[in-house]
Amino acid sequence: MSKVILAEYLFTRLKQCGLKFMFGVPGDYNLQLLDHVEPQGLKWVGNCNELNSGYAADGYARVAGIGSLITTFGVGELSAINAIAGAYAEKVCVVHIVGTPPRKTRTDKLFVHHTLGDGDYFHFAKMYEHITVAQAGLWDNETAPEMIDAALQKCLEQHRPVYISVPDDMVNDLVASERLSTPIKLETVTGQVPQLLSEKVYNSQRPVILVDGECFGVEKDVNKLAKITGWPTFVSAFGKGLVDESLPNFLGVWGPETERYWKDCDLILCFGPHWSGTNTHMFTTIPDQNITICLTSTGVRFKDQNWTCSFTSVLKTLLGLDIEKLAKPTQISRTLQKPQPQGKLITQADFYRFLSCSGLFKPNDIIMAETGTAGIGAREFTLPENVLLFGPVTWLSIGYMLPAALGTSLARSTRTILLIGDGSFQMTAQELSTIIKQKLNFLLILVNNDGYTIERCIHGKDQSYNDVARWNYLQAPDFFGGGSDDYRIRTASARTWKELEDVLEREKASEAPCLSMIEVFTTKEDAPRFLLGLLEKQYPDGLPSGFPHMEAA
Amino acid sequence: MSKVILAEYLFTRLKQCGLKFMFGVPGDYNLQLLDHVEPQGLKWVGNCNELNSGYAADGYARVAGIGSLITTFGVGELSAINAIAGAYAEKVCVVHIVGTPPRKTRTDKLFVHHTLGDGDYFHFAKMYEHITVAQAGLWDNETAPEMIDAALQKCLEQHRPVYISVPDDMVNDLVASERLSTPIKLETVTGQVPQLLSEKVYNSQRPVILVDGECFGVEKDVNKLAKITGWPTFVSAFGKGLVDESLPNFLGVWGPETERYWKDCDLILCFGPHWSGTNTHMFTTIPDQNITICLTSTGVRFKDQNWTCSFTSVLKTLLGLDIEKLAKPTQISRTLQKPQPQGKLITQADFYRFLSCSGLFKPNDIIMAETGTAGIGAREFTLPENVLLFGPVTWLSIGYMLPAALGTSLARSTRTILLIGDGSFQMTAQELSTIIKQKLNFLLILVNNDGYTIERCIHGKDQSYNDVARWNYLQAPDFFGGGSDDYRIRTASARTWKELEDVLEREKASEAPCLSMIEVFTTKEDAPRFLLGLLEKQYPDGLPSGFPHMEAA
Repeated sequence: MSKVILAEYLFTRLKQCGLKFMFGVPGDYNLQLLDHVEPQGLKWVGNCNELNSGYAADGYARVAGIGSLITTFGVGELSAINAIAGAYAEKVCVVHIVGTPPRKTRTDKLFVHHTLGDGDYFHFAKMYEHITVAQAGLWDNETAPEMIDAALQKCLEQHRPVYISVPDDMVNDLVASERLSTPIKLETVTGQVPQLLSEKVYNSQRPVILVDGECFGVEKDVNKLAKITGWPTFVSAFGKGLVDESLPNFLGVWGPETERYWKDCDLILCFGPHWSGTNTHMFTTIPDQNITICLTSTGVRFKDQNWTCSFTSVLKTLLGLDIEKLAKPTQISRTLQKPQPQGKLITQADFYRFLSCSGLFKPNDIIMAETGTAGIGAREFTLPENVLLFGPVTWLSIGYMLPAALGTSLARSTRTILLIGDGSFQMTAQELSTIIKQKLNFLLILVNNDGYTIERCIHGKDQSYNDVARWNYLQAPDFFGGGSDDYRIRTASARTWKELEDVLEREKASEAPCLSMIEVFTTKEDAPRFLLGLLEKQYPDGLPSGFPHMEAA
Repeated sequence: MSKVILAEYLFTRLKQCGLKFMFGVPGDYNLQLLDHVEPQGLKWVGNCNELNSGYAADGYARVAGIGSLITTFGVGELSAINAIAGAYAEKVCVVHIVGTPPRKTRTDKLFVHHTLGDGDYFHFAKMYEHITVAQAGLWDNETAPEMIDAALQKCLEQHRPVYISVPDDMVNDLVASERLSTPIKLETVTGQVPQLLSEKVYNSQRPVILVDGECFGVEKDVNKLAKITGWPTFVSAFGKGLVDESLPNFLGVWGPETERYWKDCDLILCFGPHWSGTNTHMFTTIPDQNITICLTSTGVRFKDQNWTCSFTSVLKTLLGLDIEKLAKPTQISRTLQKPQPQGKLITQADFYRFLSCSGLFKPNDIIMAETGTAGIGAREFTLPENVLLFGPVTWLSIGYMLPAALGTSLARSTRTILLIGDGSFQMTAQELSTIIKQKLNFLLILVNNDGYTIERCIHGKDQSYNDVARWNYLQAPDFFGGGSDDYRIRTASARTWKELEDVLEREKASEAPCLSMIEVFTTKEDAPRFLLGLLEKQYPDGLPSGFPHMEAA
């Protein structure tokens, strides 16, 4: 029987799933494993710390379909655990590989480093049970290939992270390679698409399409449906970026701002629903269940009824309907208002539309907008063709977006634009050095509003706990590695609309690849309109002074 | 019955335990709680991220006796979990307070942000069960005070972290204040000190004292014993800094280097044993069990026999023995060799003794030596009076030491000296900005050896996974906030012994408070002798070129 070493088996499987880059941090229990990453044809991207590895693998997976990281036992895996929990909450295929002490060390219950000292080597794997859909604790060469395959299968089927631990002494052991000749087979959801679906659609006079974030792999067909029907089409915050925004019937993010476009509909086809509070304006914009058909990766849901069938078959049914019998395309279309900022200083109420109308965004860009004012503001963007956008969904771990942008940028080698506040930037700033080391085409727009402004809007406007240390942010590119002849560094700042306009003009004229960083200053009580509304609630008797932009809003 | 709000109860109890500073990061489930930190008389120190908060609280606790941090639910607590695991492994009193969603949100099982979306709000608390000795999930005003007290009691008794979760809606609820008038009562270990202890000590001709790291709170008495007996006294790596190194009978770190001083002993009094692999040269320096009496916080151990009694009573017994009947003081004393470095360039084989002999270290300094070459090298230091030293013990999570140094520095307002490698620095570098914001008297010595040299010594000398991005490190103080009139910034670098000498002279002449950063360059295959020994094992047939300093070693 043909054999390969365990490391080759594991990495070959990951390559078969589409993986090209591996993130992680070395540690003495994973060094043997790391020896094989690049020889096996994966590109190694070392991160500054393991949390950043987890975030990068998550970002990579959102574009490439699957992401992976290798950490060491204990210290490494626990540093990354928050990132894996985020991938679990927001359904991302992340394979977390952990190098553990050799088996004999473990059965002898030795008190080695990176353990809790009680001889129990299972604490950390048990923690991971809460946030992964499979845990493969490799231990035996006979069973290892099957365990790896089972874990990867669950990862891809359930679109959630899995945990694979590899004892340091097993890395170079031979295992049967036979299974490698067959791709991992996913259990396909079977079952008939309910007739109700076609009936409801044929009977509808005013149908709309709502695209939420959990429609993995079928975005193209969903776009096709939006295009051929011409029905009013919306996205959720999570779904933003999944629909071609150049379609005339694309009408923006489902919510109060677009209510006029959807309030009279009689049928809502909701793709990939993910109804967390932050994705539904605190549950206020969950579409009316009496007229909503939910289409998910495992079936169709209407009111209390469920039918099991695949996403693909549902879309095949929808795309196969007789176009002549369907409701006619909508005549409404969104008028995009170019903002007319009042005053001299940049305010967040207008900043995001100003950016969006400036011509800065190009087809194929990736835009990452971090949780906070930037993430809320980015919902106002109008995206050129084939632009991916990632914003705050549910996990909302600030610090996520910068390392995630490293991942997305490697997964799709076009320009990445990151919008991030100062507080979030401080969380994981060092990963900018990896972006520089990888010479990625990267535009970082730092919104400096002197602290955690989103928290100020929620509670504690003037509390010092919402302050952060004041960094000299524009020194970051130089500090973290600087430029070179083939990778230039550019920095600029803007406080006024005029300065912003000039900076954006220069930016548009620039050539790739480079790291460009723009620091945009806004006051610390300034935020997009939605957040200013929250801030107002802290002061029912009227706002104190220091809110120059509220009247303009 | 007299009442106080829950936040006041909690913070009052922590103050009673000796807490003065609270670390953490705001999040929308803990903002209500944060409102009360400073009004209740604790100083709030916001960190750049939660892992750093955990490390800072751990460092603070190692000096002040107890440390605490406040994080938010899910994202915050999971980011900090690796730090809390470290406190568990190395026995540090850390109180982790987590602000959770309000109780009604939890009982309604709402799909709010920072949750996994399954309505189960207990996942993270369950993860924490593995690494804390008590979990108080506050839920009811009636039971909250007792639950807080029980958790704090376990923390102090077992010298390990505890977890207290506070629903956002309970913060301002009134609870009975009655218990606050009585300090938390620790269950005292009772039982007779075994007669065997005195007998063994009286009968010994050549006793020695070995001080390991788990002798919390009794260092003074242990020092007194070393002083009045004059017996050869050693520390473990973990215990280094606990014994006054100006004592003539202090003979250094227990291990091969000092074997000549202890090999003929007939009794070893081992205080606070912690026999992890990394604290015992991979179990090779665990003292001979046939002649070792282990003295711990819960009793006395000799071979297979155990007696329950308190540390205090054991020390009282030892200090009460008739000095006339005891073995006479030792005549041996250590001769400290000032290194005579060969060659021009700085090498780590001599660097640490060179530093130690330079007069840089002053009484009352705190020295922090990060896991890696710095942590190994620091074992060679000779410490002036009342200097605390913290080095790698068991958890060995690189990135720990810088935020921990923020904590130790706040706990004892003397100068802190941090020695750290470039790879470790990159993990948590941003916390330097909090050190600057707090205007701490701080000397950062960065050993730049271009990557993870300790890993190179273990495995993969030339592997690119042991490389890190190349930062312009000396820009750090300026980038992270810069200096001011009352807090100066100073940077310098050294590649040669001569440059190092000059830099250290200038450093010694400087005035506080300031942040001084010195970058010391060594080659990437250079390390303290102990690690070079490991490196040699990778090349049993002789080292390849590129090891200029091996012959000198």
